[in-house]
Amino acid sequence: MNIIHRLNIEDVNFKQQLNQLLRWEPVSDANIVTRVEEIIGDVRRNGDTALLALTQRFDRFQATSAAKLEISNEQCRDALKALNPSLRDALKVAAARIRHYAENQKLQSWSYQESNGTVLGQKITPLARVGIYVPGGKAAYSSTVLMNAIPAKVAEVPEIIMVSPTPDGQVNSTVLAAAAVAGVDRVFTVGGAQAIAALAYGTETIPPVDKIVGPGNAYVATAKRQVFGKVGIDMIAGPSEILIFADANIPADWIATDMFAQAEHDEDAQAILISTDGNYLDAVENSIQKLLKGRPRREMIEASLKKRGALIQVNTVDEAIELINRIAPEHLELAVENASEVSTKIKHAGAIFIGNYSAEVFGDYCAGPNHVLPTSGTARFSSPLGVYDFQKRSSLIQCSPAGANELAKTAATLARAEGLIAHAESAEVRSSSNN
Amino acid sequence: MNIIHRLNIEDVNFKQQLNQLLRWEPVSDANIVTRVEEIIGDVRRNGDTALLALTQRFDRFQATSAAKLEISNEQCRDALKALNPSLRDALKVAAARIRHYAENQKLQSWSYQESNGTVLGQKITPLARVGIYVPGGKAAYSSTVLMNAIPAKVAEVPEIIMVSPTPDGQVNSTVLAAAAVAGVDRVFTVGGAQAIAALAYGTETIPPVDKIVGPGNAYVATAKRQVFGKVGIDMIAGPSEILIFADANIPADWIATDMFAQAEHDEDAQAILISTDGNYLDAVENSIQKLLKGRPRREMIEASLKKRGALIQVNTVDEAIELINRIAPEHLELAVENASEVSTKIKHAGAIFIGNYSAEVFGDYCAGPNHVLPTSGTARFSSPLGVYDFQKRSSLIQCSPAGANELAKTAATLARAEGLIAHAESAEVRSSSNN
Repeated sequence: MNIIHRLNIEDVNFKQQLNQLLRWEPVSDANIVTRVEEIIGDVRRNGDTALLALTQRFDRFQATSAAKLEISNEQCRDALKALNPSLRDALKVAAARIRHYAENQKLQSWSYQESNGTVLGQKITPLARVGIYVPGGKAAYSSTVLMNAIPAKVAEVPEIIMVSPTPDGQVNSTVLAAAAVAGVDRVFTVGGAQAIAALAYGTETIPPVDKIVGPGNAYVATAKRQVFGKVGIDMIAGPSEILIFADANIPADWIATDMFAQAEHDEDAQAILISTDGNYLDAVENSIQKLLKGRPRREMIEASLKKRGALIQVNTVDEAIELINRIAPEHLELAVENASEVSTKIKHAGAIFIGNYSAEVFGDYCAGPNHVLPTSGTARFSSPLGVYDFQKRSSLIQCSPAGANELAKTAATLARAEGLIAHAESAEVRSSSNN
Repeated sequence: MNIIHRLNIEDVNFKQQLNQLLRWEPVSDANIVTRVEEIIGDVRRNGDTALLALTQRFDRFQATSAAKLEISNEQCRDALKALNPSLRDALKVAAARIRHYAENQKLQSWSYQESNGTVLGQKITPLARVGIYVPGGKAAYSSTVLMNAIPAKVAEVPEIIMVSPTPDGQVNSTVLAAAAVAGVDRVFTVGGAQAIAALAYGTETIPPVDKIVGPGNAYVATAKRQVFGKVGIDMIAGPSEILIFADANIPADWIATDMFAQAEHDEDAQAILISTDGNYLDAVENSIQKLLKGRPRREMIEASLKKRGALIQVNTVDEAIELINRIAPEHLELAVENASEVSTKIKHAGAIFIGNYSAEVFGDYCAGPNHVLPTSGTARFSSPLGVYDFQKRSSLIQCSPAGANELAKTAATLARAEGLIAHAESAEVRSSSNN
């Protein structure tokens, strides 16, 4: 068994092999669905009482009252002050860059007036209250806080509520510090499906929000699916992926390291390298072998590369571009000659890292663009998390009498053709012949 | 039993009454879910064969081959030519207005360069292929075609595929004409869950799309939920609703007619009027009684008003605004003095119709803004269908060596704090000290 799959576009069964490699269907475990339904029902009926009991049961964290589940802004600020200065600076630099990029995404209201005086437009408003889920324990990342909270803040959401479980009462002070940097308004130490239920329906202590974003385990993801419609949610993410298109102009060791960075997330994470140069693929394979020795998370990286990683040889740059557009990767690194030109031909990708110096990991933390990106080919129809996800639009229609008179004829004709007579009449009462 | 509910904000149980009235939880019928799962599985496995058999079974329409399920562009153009001239003109006027409004929604790519040479940006691309579901039979509306297809066309989606069932082989020529006007690329006479499955997974004849939009019955809605993730979908709409805030400055008969226009859709449609003036509410109730006599769809309108309609008295304009924002209606008519000023205080609504001449029905057909709007309070977090729903964003990151050197420090610090060493190394290989 090789350390990583090796494919060639000329293989007779290439398409099948590739599909096999890319296949990802989220398991919807009926058992989890049922348990999550029960938890949501419990929190809807019993509010804080249920939340306290479930938090004690799942996180082994006993609070004497629901108010004790809240972490004050002062505690978050204290966590920031107490942080190692280089880490504190890094958080602040990252936050400033994420904020600056996000400012460019802000939607603006617009309107126009027609010659007859009618005004049409679109009004932009922020969501009123947003919930951010931040996983606890090992996978508690400060970057999750920044990437989810800052766009909401830039959208001018008046109230951002963060929930994050504290298994055995252990709080992650970097996460609290990130909440202070990002401007989170309230923090509650709850997690799992019970936290999602509390955010969606509200309890005596936790106010209901309009949208819930952020990553989580199968229980959290299932709960988000179930409350969708009552509140908005972001996409349910699949495993993280990187697709790299590289040639010998970039050191093989760099690319091997980039692939490790993806593979170290978890065993289902996917790192794929495409090249027109078979010798270069050999070189990267050698780098992988060499650099794996004795490194941290070696087992995880090996498991991921073996299961879902691949080195793919193609004949031409055009073939590579076609393959990239077909895969529609979450992260795309273009480390080839003329990377800029190639990038103009990419139609479907969550984020495109152009040139040898654009490491995908810069995007994970601090380049500026959001690291919450569409996975599993969903970049074909969806976008990175952004300020626009925390804003919404309302259409504006303000007809003048003359404008209404013109519209009435068209509307009534179409309404009568659809057999909707009251529609026609509602238009016609506004026409000048009736006034 | 009154013809319509009468509420007063001063009622002790007002909040309960209102919640009762607004309650709408889509029934997820387990039986429908199972049948839809079977249909989707059948189409995925058996492609055209399944599609033909299911179309024969559910629509009693027998095609000798899947190719016969397609309606040519020529047939659509012929349908347009054969249309009653006033209806043809109305379709064209409506399409031109919808198109013009939509042009304003088009997202544009942007980028900026930092002083160290790093370029960050966001690239906008259209979806590659989109499917539009148009119900057949009685509820086959040409306006559905225009409202769903035109924004996709303005987004420059290269291929727009329309599906619409033809029960017993009966095609709706106005719907075909609308497809010609809107610029739909291909039309197939299939419907139900089988049409959604075909669009999501593709068959030998129908190519797979990236997103499916458009209204449908419980089977269609359930199928859309099930294929979500494989493809994008629009919101699953609840019943249509209008909330009107009016006073004696607008004739009671106009408002009664506006409420009829909503109520004639179906029994679950909701028409609510708010006023600070009890006498005005009496006048509208009298108009309703008077105008109901002998009118088309009287039974439907009565059923809807009795079940979900209401006249609500409040004390002040501010109370009305608070109530509106709480309800977050799909359609809002502001037919009060100072309607413009009131509109600036509305935070949550799908479409806002300002002033006495802005009939909601203009929005249904031809004002310009889309008639596909968030229902059941989802305007708190979602937006009208628009060009932006057929475009997606990709983040662009192009680091200069100097830019990478700066980012490497921040990224590596944050990565090490998260215990992700390969992330740190992938950043650090790009820093100048290593090159």
